Amino acid sequence: MAAPISQTCAAVERSIRERVPPLLTDLYQFTMAYAYWRSGRHNEPAVFELFFRSNPFGGGFSLFSGLHDCLLFMRSFHFTEEDVEYLRSVLPPGSDPGFFSFLRELDCSGVTLRSVPEGTVVFARVPLMEVSGPLAVVQLLETSLLCLVNYASLVCSNAARFRLAAGSRRKLLEMGLRRAQGPDGGLTASRYTHIGGFDLTSNVLAGYLFGIPVAGTMAHSYVTSFCSLEEVWPQSLAPANGDCDSADPVDLVSLSRGWLGRVCELLGVEPSGIREGELAAFLSYAIAYPRNFLPVIDSYSVGSSGLVNFCAVALSLCELQYKPLGVRLDSGDLCRQSVEVRRAFRACSDHFSIPAFQSLVIVGTNNISEHSIQELNEKENEIDVVGVGTHLVTCTRQPSLGCVYKLVEVRGSPRMKVSEDPEKSTMPGSKAVYRLLDSQGHPFLDLLCLCEESPPQVGVAIRCHPLGQGQEAGAVTVTPAQVASLRQDVFTQGQITHPLRSAAEVRESVQSALRTLLPQHKRLQDPEAYTVAVSEKLYTVFTEVRRGDASNRNGSKILLAI
Amino acid sequence: MAAPISQTCAAVERSIRERVPPLLTDLYQFTMAYAYWRSGRHNEPAVFELFFRSNPFGGGFSLFSGLHDCLLFMRSFHFTEEDVEYLRSVLPPGSDPGFFSFLRELDCSGVTLRSVPEGTVVFARVPLMEVSGPLAVVQLLETSLLCLVNYASLVCSNAARFRLAAGSRRKLLEMGLRRAQGPDGGLTASRYTHIGGFDLTSNVLAGYLFGIPVAGTMAHSYVTSFCSLEEVWPQSLAPANGDCDSADPVDLVSLSRGWLGRVCELLGVEPSGIREGELAAFLSYAIAYPRNFLPVIDSYSVGSSGLVNFCAVALSLCELQYKPLGVRLDSGDLCRQSVEVRRAFRACSDHFSIPAFQSLVIVGTNNISEHSIQELNEKENEIDVVGVGTHLVTCTRQPSLGCVYKLVEVRGSPRMKVSEDPEKSTMPGSKAVYRLLDSQGHPFLDLLCLCEESPPQVGVAIRCHPLGQGQEAGAVTVTPAQVASLRQDVFTQGQITHPLRSAAEVRESVQSALRTLLPQHKRLQDPEAYTVAVSEKLYTVFTEVRRGDASNRNGSKILLAI
Repeated sequence: MAAPISQTCAAVERSIRERVPPLLTDLYQFTMAYAYWRSGRHNEPAVFELFFRSNPFGGGFSLFSGLHDCLLFMRSFHFTEEDVEYLRSVLPPGSDPGFFSFLRELDCSGVTLRSVPEGTVVFARVPLMEVSGPLAVVQLLETSLLCLVNYASLVCSNAARFRLAAGSRRKLLEMGLRRAQGPDGGLTASRYTHIGGFDLTSNVLAGYLFGIPVAGTMAHSYVTSFCSLEEVWPQSLAPANGDCDSADPVDLVSLSRGWLGRVCELLGVEPSGIREGELAAFLSYAIAYPRNFLPVIDSYSVGSSGLVNFCAVALSLCELQYKPLGVRLDSGDLCRQSVEVRRAFRACSDHFSIPAFQSLVIVGTNNISEHSIQELNEKENEIDVVGVGTHLVTCTRQPSLGCVYKLVEVRGSPRMKVSEDPEKSTMPGSKAVYRLLDSQGHPFLDLLCLCEESPPQVGVAIRCHPLGQGQEAGAVTVTPAQVASLRQDVFTQGQITHPLRSAAEVRESVQSALRTLLPQHKRLQDPEAYTVAVSEKLYTVFTEVRRGDASNRNGSKILLAI
Repeated sequence: MAAPISQTCAAVERSIRERVPPLLTDLYQFTMAYAYWRSGRHNEPAVFELFFRSNPFGGGFSLFSGLHDCLLFMRSFHFTEEDVEYLRSVLPPGSDPGFFSFLRELDCSGVTLRSVPEGTVVFARVPLMEVSGPLAVVQLLETSLLCLVNYASLVCSNAARFRLAAGSRRKLLEMGLRRAQGPDGGLTASRYTHIGGFDLTSNVLAGYLFGIPVAGTMAHSYVTSFCSLEEVWPQSLAPANGDCDSADPVDLVSLSRGWLGRVCELLGVEPSGIREGELAAFLSYAIAYPRNFLPVIDSYSVGSSGLVNFCAVALSLCELQYKPLGVRLDSGDLCRQSVEVRRAFRACSDHFSIPAFQSLVIVGTNNISEHSIQELNEKENEIDVVGVGTHLVTCTRQPSLGCVYKLVEVRGSPRMKVSEDPEKSTMPGSKAVYRLLDSQGHPFLDLLCLCEESPPQVGVAIRCHPLGQGQEAGAVTVTPAQVASLRQDVFTQGQITHPLRSAAEVRESVQSALRTLLPQHKRLQDPEAYTVAVSEKLYTVFTEVRRGDASNRNGSKILLAI
């Protein structure tokens, strides 16, 4: 189903250049860049960190996504002549023309990105990306990187929750494009919900660009577009048996009318409620795609019309050696209806000795939320595939992750924002990030250290300060059975230094990472908080910088004499 | 601030082709198109309607937006060779090759779009767009049109609510790009929140493409990037008086240190709490942009540092005949802080006889919601400009409008979906839509009629059936003082037939339309429902088609004999 990989990569990169031109940012990035340039500070080495402050959806974890697009964005980052001329028109009059020459030459060749890999299970307050390079350039990247990571990570995490709620058995279909927040919101959703655990998408472009399996058969409009059996053309279908290509076509309309009578009798359905147009629509579709017959059966009434029309056409297909796929339910009480539909399928299978009717698929698609997926585990139902749109792609429960991008170091000296809200304070300095695992391989603590500190050692106790609760909680001592470095260099000197992986590969690693996460952190409601802590040394720097100590380490010393 | 219009239009059209290629749709559009084509029905004349089922955010109205992009999308709608090859790979094997030749030739030259104008005040259940043309083509347009209208209308309506909550005096700045649902979500939000009533955006690309005024000065990172006054370079600034270009530059650092002492004394601020780096940042920015000085003053502490640093630099600018603009507050209790800041400005103005300090602007930007904007009307505050991000662009309260696209007519005969949910039933037949106004020019009822009915007459009583309450409410009789036809032909024979208007023009008409809407429909909470009704004749068709009467008018007649 995937397009050739090389073609896809080129198309994805082109699409990023088109979707995220460097003007797609906040004006203040340019006014700041100008002020840095004007004071000769634009090339000072600076470090920014990207993180979020709380796990989304009241959950205990998140999935980090969007890195792939960030890398393509950074690789192609440059301003066109048109861009620069527009900026000249909106920056305050009198801006030094030399700045615009500087912009024309700008690219990411001086920028290094260290990042947790795409699809990593991550937690609030852990710096996921560290962007270092010339102050003006890394500042200019802020809005675009946030925009690319924020929604991708959010919707990927949302998908993972739907997957956890659904269990591994049921297939999940993403179908949110029409309700997404803009065309790109739809495309991003299709891509990252697949990574988060969805099996299929309705979005054709996502199939084309990312190789995600696509699915879909018909809408109500197809059904209601038919009025009578006279509209079915051709009316006949050749049997499927591969042996004889020249098997004579059979009149499917007559065949189905015959089956319809028997099905009505078997299921006790009044023929007077059956819609002829619906039967015509099913027949027409079955003749066009006899191997892909999966109609929507509630355009009029499931019990009085859609179900028996489906059975009649599907039984006819079976008679011609085709295998019908199943039905879709799109309104009303999906659980109750699926049980009734399944009962009818079993009755047909038994009564007419049609084994194919035992394995028909029932797809449910009606305003499905995480909550309604959880209900499927509690209420009797026969739904095999769930299609999810609005609640998945718009992330109804929490439509933004709230990632931030904060300056932590300039010229080797740590910086922080103190802020009126303690929650908005940042953790100063460039850091190393380690994940500590227990003897069963379960992660239990993420540790932020200063870069110059030696890494935690397996089997050696470490004293550290858990974050949260006002960043003032007491110290704890932990002993890791394994230690993993959480981030890797992925971009340096203008080049992507780590192989880009396909959506399918990332999806696979996401699901295996989620399996190692302890159940208490995966609980959808009231999860146990995963511990994120800072080393003793980092904690000391934090305290010093916050106080504004006039030491070498300070972020902005107190102005002692005025 | 706007780019030349011609350049902008071309860029917008290019951006739509890139953002909304015809593969950005649901797979079932193609399987249905195939089945129509296979049975020779693809060119049957069909009519679809686009509408939403309830007004968003618990409000009494919505704004219709996205038409502009729909028109550009339709004008450039065609499949590339690459698109067709991909479709061949994902449609069921054995699909007739002739279908792919058909796709290659496809465009919108046979499609007619009647639509309410961009920015119209609209209500639930009113068909906003009527798309008519060859069945397979108008079916293929579904997902893209929904995607383009859904979010644009939602975020525009959200912006209108923020505007209503804020009143007309306060300026509103949209700054949601980093939290938007994807890059395009951010761009769409900037455009349609401007139309809905926002004055400014931080989004540079939105300024470039749509001519929206852009704004922004600095982030906390700019402030925290400075550590000491030694980093300020150049340290001097020439006075502003236009007369003498060669006026000698003045050492702004020394000047500000002098002012800082006086301000601390006046405001009773302890010099020991002042951050030197913050002062350096303010000075550096003021020297770069002396006419655009509006720093963020809460990177450390407003009261102990940011406010006095601002006053010192701003007073220095005033001394050199520049006019500082104001400050931004980004955390904590914005109302309380704005009052304290204003008091300090007034004290400086009075004590130092600086009239410019009477008109400084206070910008507030901290997780602003519709609710917090309403609070500004109730709590004492001095905030002049409000910057809104997350809650505006992600539409936290209701992140999807839920527009649908329903088939209402094929070959001149009305169609409807009956559905298990009465709410999901549709109103059959191609329609005319009229807005009835009272003698003061206030709209009071939208009337849906059959196309062949004569329009309602001014001063003549009409009997009609209000929709809602199960579409079964009793008939009412109304007499309009004015009648307006709500929709117009905007696309026919492949061409846009109505002039595209700029964002500024649409914004103007939105605001004047909102002024004519009665206050009870504009109330943000518990508004009075606006009446949408169907004519007697349309009501009769609805009843007949729902029953499945075997008359000429039926959508899908009952299968009488099986």
